[in-house]
Amino acid sequence: MNRYLKTFYLALIAGLALSVASWAHAGMAPRGTGDLGIIIERASGSVKIIETSTQTVLRRVEGFGDLSHASVVYSRDERYAYIFGRDGGLTKLDILTGKIVKRIIQGGNSIGGAISQDGSLVAVSNYKPGGVKVFDSKTLELVADIPAVSADGTQSKTIGLVDIPGQKFVFSLYDAGETWIADFSKSRTPEITKFTNTGELPYDALVTDDGRYYVAGLFGEDGLAKLDLWQIDKGITRILDGYGRGEEKLPVYKMPHLEGWAKAGDHIFLPAIGRHEVLIVDQRSWKEVGRISVHGQPVFVVARPDGRQVWVNFAHPRNDTLQVIDVPSRKIIKTFKPGKAILHMEFTPRGEQVWVSVRDANRVDVYDTRTFERLKEIQAEKPSGIFLTARAHRTGL
Amino acid sequence: MNRYLKTFYLALIAGLALSVASWAHAGMAPRGTGDLGIIIERASGSVKIIETSTQTVLRRVEGFGDLSHASVVYSRDERYAYIFGRDGGLTKLDILTGKIVKRIIQGGNSIGGAISQDGSLVAVSNYKPGGVKVFDSKTLELVADIPAVSADGTQSKTIGLVDIPGQKFVFSLYDAGETWIADFSKSRTPEITKFTNTGELPYDALVTDDGRYYVAGLFGEDGLAKLDLWQIDKGITRILDGYGRGEEKLPVYKMPHLEGWAKAGDHIFLPAIGRHEVLIVDQRSWKEVGRISVHGQPVFVVARPDGRQVWVNFAHPRNDTLQVIDVPSRKIIKTFKPGKAILHMEFTPRGEQVWVSVRDANRVDVYDTRTFERLKEIQAEKPSGIFLTARAHRTGL
Repeated sequence: MNRYLKTFYLALIAGLALSVASWAHAGMAPRGTGDLGIIIERASGSVKIIETSTQTVLRRVEGFGDLSHASVVYSRDERYAYIFGRDGGLTKLDILTGKIVKRIIQGGNSIGGAISQDGSLVAVSNYKPGGVKVFDSKTLELVADIPAVSADGTQSKTIGLVDIPGQKFVFSLYDAGETWIADFSKSRTPEITKFTNTGELPYDALVTDDGRYYVAGLFGEDGLAKLDLWQIDKGITRILDGYGRGEEKLPVYKMPHLEGWAKAGDHIFLPAIGRHEVLIVDQRSWKEVGRISVHGQPVFVVARPDGRQVWVNFAHPRNDTLQVIDVPSRKIIKTFKPGKAILHMEFTPRGEQVWVSVRDANRVDVYDTRTFERLKEIQAEKPSGIFLTARAHRTGL
Repeated sequence: MNRYLKTFYLALIAGLALSVASWAHAGMAPRGTGDLGIIIERASGSVKIIETSTQTVLRRVEGFGDLSHASVVYSRDERYAYIFGRDGGLTKLDILTGKIVKRIIQGGNSIGGAISQDGSLVAVSNYKPGGVKVFDSKTLELVADIPAVSADGTQSKTIGLVDIPGQKFVFSLYDAGETWIADFSKSRTPEITKFTNTGELPYDALVTDDGRYYVAGLFGEDGLAKLDLWQIDKGITRILDGYGRGEEKLPVYKMPHLEGWAKAGDHIFLPAIGRHEVLIVDQRSWKEVGRISVHGQPVFVVARPDGRQVWVNFAHPRNDTLQVIDVPSRKIIKTFKPGKAILHMEFTPRGEQVWVSVRDANRVDVYDTRTFERLKEIQAEKPSGIFLTARAHRTGL
């Protein structure tokens, strides 16, 4: 063989090998993304990319800034994670390659976000300077800036930001006690509809999984505010008036999260602020139909996807415990003490596993939800939120 | 530069380029799988792999045998499709690469399948020789063979096969009028629980999205059979007795599909067999609370994921029409005539689009569900079922 040709072939082979190796190294080998997810490492500004089929860590990625109160939404193809940081950072991460595609600081202090029904818009809710900013999900370019200034000129923190069908977002104004709908269905300049009587200090909100009912928790009043998004002319109505928030003036150690609400059968299970109780609400009448005594002040009250169980974690100093409520009997059927600072629980979409962050043990535990057996322990640095890609397919997260 | 070195570099570049090109050609470039899906081309035994973000066809794959009555389930990572064909074929397709990973003929005449909660088992329901076979989802090796022989020795077709939480499958015996639960939670040899009084000729079934209620339609009786899977000791009960099936002895042109049932708010919308009506059932009482006159004998009655609309297609000879029911008002708000033989409708998981098969026009139409605008027309040969990967995350499909 001609030695040029030999050199050529050798180099060709080297090139092919290098190329395959580099793809493999970058983790670019094709794989499905339906079983992937992210664990937030809150203290180090890093995340772990995990998969739930064999419960393993695929890689760790750094450089997300302050993740002390972080949340995540996913692109509609379940490839990109949008990570909202406490420092106002919005980071787009490619979970297949582990590369940060883009990172911007969009505000002074953000607390959460949402992605539009069609996946084209990412909205961020801000404490400072308040308001909501909306970005193009591909480029992270600013599409709309919605300052949260109420009729009397008050500038508000925004909370309880969710997506609803029809290319809309809903959020509430903490300081002004209002709820706004931003409609992007006609253009990228939203039409805003305002409800000014939400109540005092809405601190978080949920939307039912059909996107119909928006319910905001009130820190300044003994009740919750409800908006029927199929009949917005009926406006905000109050529900669960006088359920007992503040009745005994219990100190509130940590605000519960309503985004981790639980729908099980016909009932919604909600954390009672400041009380060691979970409230059960009938979703037709929106009246309380029962309450369950639990170990501490509930933070997340989350239903297993089939609604047969509700899992509850608690505020400091009782945050070393996790309880499981059996829905039909309304009894606590299991109490775990996996370690200090249980911050979050995330179910796999069909409910066979639950992933639990145990911050102070630097560990995420994976449980079988039927046997309560611990399937895996995963090392993570001060883990907080856990977010699986199946969220991409759901409304109101 | 030394000419060896020059040749080396040139060849290296060529090698890298070839490599990238070959990956691209094989479609192996990494991409998310959350927005993918399959269109069945029923006459040619082929499928089209599509994506919903920009509504395009990624590739066409042949070699699936008889797809004249086919259905699909997905692996938990949303990478593999399991395609059940009329000829008893079970084919595992890698939708990222378009390669058939494995294909077996598992029975004589299969009509559908399901995948277990943890994704490890694929079950197939057979007409001939009847019974259910269960396979390992990785290898397609046989795990369990469940002949459907009833107490009196009758061999049955099996229908209405669904997965439910706890690593179980439920199905019914058409000829024997029984319903069986196969529990794989303890081992790969299932524990079978039998209910022998389902009723005459169960022809299809649904399970509510929480996996709690299993409802079988009866061809031989004027009513449906319900099983509460949270309270199986209560056994099968009859619902909607005397709703009118056969009241006027209408000929039945095509059996409706119950798997395309619609849950909207507190109500379930069901096709009435042989009648030009959709039944509305209250999910608490399981009583009929209304019925809606429609264009023909309904086949699929499917709710948009938010439950605000219900879309209906019809049996021959009225199968050129599609109707949309507005749930709150129970009125038909839209009637389409896209072409002859509208066989199936599939919503994107958050409901902004619906994909509609128009068999005789060799076309799949994509509609915006809010504006009813036709977004795209996609060429396909005699398209029937459309199955999106988001099904991987749902129970009871």
